[in-house]
Amino acid sequence: METGFIGLGNLGNIMVKNLVESGRKLRIFNRTIEKTKPFEATTSVESDVPSLAKSCDIIFSILSDDAAVESLCFNQGLIANMKPGSVHVCLSTIAASTATRLAEEHAEKGIDYLTATIVGRPEAAQARALTVCLSGTSAKKEAVVELLTDLGGKNIKQFGDDPKSAAVVKICTNFLITSAIEAMGEAFNLAGKAGADVALFHEMITETLFSAPIYKNYGKVIIDESYDKAGFTSQLGFKDTRLALALANDAGVTLPFADIIKNRFIVNHSRGRNLYDWASIAKVIKEESEPLTDVKQSQ
Amino acid sequence: METGFIGLGNLGNIMVKNLVESGRKLRIFNRTIEKTKPFEATTSVESDVPSLAKSCDIIFSILSDDAAVESLCFNQGLIANMKPGSVHVCLSTIAASTATRLAEEHAEKGIDYLTATIVGRPEAAQARALTVCLSGTSAKKEAVVELLTDLGGKNIKQFGDDPKSAAVVKICTNFLITSAIEAMGEAFNLAGKAGADVALFHEMITETLFSAPIYKNYGKVIIDESYDKAGFTSQLGFKDTRLALALANDAGVTLPFADIIKNRFIVNHSRGRNLYDWASIAKVIKEESEPLTDVKQSQ
Repeated sequence: METGFIGLGNLGNIMVKNLVESGRKLRIFNRTIEKTKPFEATTSVESDVPSLAKSCDIIFSILSDDAAVESLCFNQGLIANMKPGSVHVCLSTIAASTATRLAEEHAEKGIDYLTATIVGRPEAAQARALTVCLSGTSAKKEAVVELLTDLGGKNIKQFGDDPKSAAVVKICTNFLITSAIEAMGEAFNLAGKAGADVALFHEMITETLFSAPIYKNYGKVIIDESYDKAGFTSQLGFKDTRLALALANDAGVTLPFADIIKNRFIVNHSRGRNLYDWASIAKVIKEESEPLTDVKQSQ
Repeated sequence: METGFIGLGNLGNIMVKNLVESGRKLRIFNRTIEKTKPFEATTSVESDVPSLAKSCDIIFSILSDDAAVESLCFNQGLIANMKPGSVHVCLSTIAASTATRLAEEHAEKGIDYLTATIVGRPEAAQARALTVCLSGTSAKKEAVVELLTDLGGKNIKQFGDDPKSAAVVKICTNFLITSAIEAMGEAFNLAGKAGADVALFHEMITETLFSAPIYKNYGKVIIDESYDKAGFTSQLGFKDTRLALALANDAGVTLPFADIIKNRFIVNHSRGRNLYDWASIAKVIKEESEPLTDVKQSQ
């Protein structure tokens, strides 16, 4: 089966490398052609979406947001050119409602649509240790699972036949991550202002009740304020928070933690940290309890 | 050195058992005398606080809240009767400001005051796997650390000379736990309402990014709604949330997640779940998105 891969960003780039190393033959496409250069010898680089779409049975795409995925599917001609019976596996984090609509648009042309959301950062992709949440229906699902393993998936979780389910799970996972970041931001700021040793506090909780990567890694980022080395940008975190709020709206539920987090991102971006790590919303918390230099301080 | 232990509640009871099993000789006191019965053969049961206070060099106390600790120290005569040079080790979760004030009151009589807050539930005490956060100054600190180990402490973290620091850390830890409960409550409710398999979602996150006891254990409690088997009551969770808000107020910082959580507890208690597990605040989230049976539903 001919396999295509669209999107050579932070994650896509490593996934293609993994697939090639696993002996997979690929046709690849990226809007910015320069990013395909390192793969000229090992893959077939396509110059446009239609030529890739016409010749593939399974096509993976990983792009930054809903608008980019919709542009790929419609404006750039993916759906119009894919073969009936072929499958588009969408790896991007997009709205659950977009997943539902895209699945319908694909189905009208006899094309399958699967959602395969990725839990893990580039280092995890590099280590072939990604978790992948898969949902939707396709006769080619088994072949897709094998490819997901070859692109760096270690733990492939099947969330059933509804193409939106894997999107829902990814959105809820990122909401939990931002909630943990905000909670640590508030707790560390409070502990520090109240005179406790914050690094030791962090050590204590991550040795015990919170012995998980999110608390270990982001806790350290928050304490070190090493926000400029972005593993995942504030801008993308803001997008995912808005996806969570939109999903909550559609589902008729409140999400008060996400309301607070959304406002953190808005303030964070007003301060110019769009491209900092999303954990930099904790910096906003700290700034809230610090004097401003241009305000005359009381004696 | 003569050692005393006051408070035979859920945790205190197991701690005394552990101390006895470690070969420690103890004088114990509990307001409800019945609870001392199982220890009649293995400890010296005192009938009032002053007689215990007069004869001990190191006294541990573990009570439910600030009022109980203050009553012990003042009304019941602990401070008035302790020997100069002796030390009171307070294991209760109380306000940081109370710890500071109590340390001063003890110091005036030449008595040392240490805060040793406990991170862990009764099962952890049973398994001698408690984490203990210790702070304050005393010449007997080393002897206290040995006793903390014998009462079930595995990991004794030293938070310096300020008696309030260990209280601050405990309050911030419990704030992080309630934040994780609220975040899971919101995320699971949203995922479920949006049609995803919540149990599988929980399995996925706890196998990966959130592979920590808090997410594993409370996540399961929330999904199973097994709130009536309280490991830690909603009532105590409410108290600790108010302690966090009071500390934030004193420190001049905001704590917006705790504001939301405080309101969850208020609603939870209006609904009669004071003595349910504190994770039952997640039930309030679920109830928010469910129809009320006495409201005529639209067609």
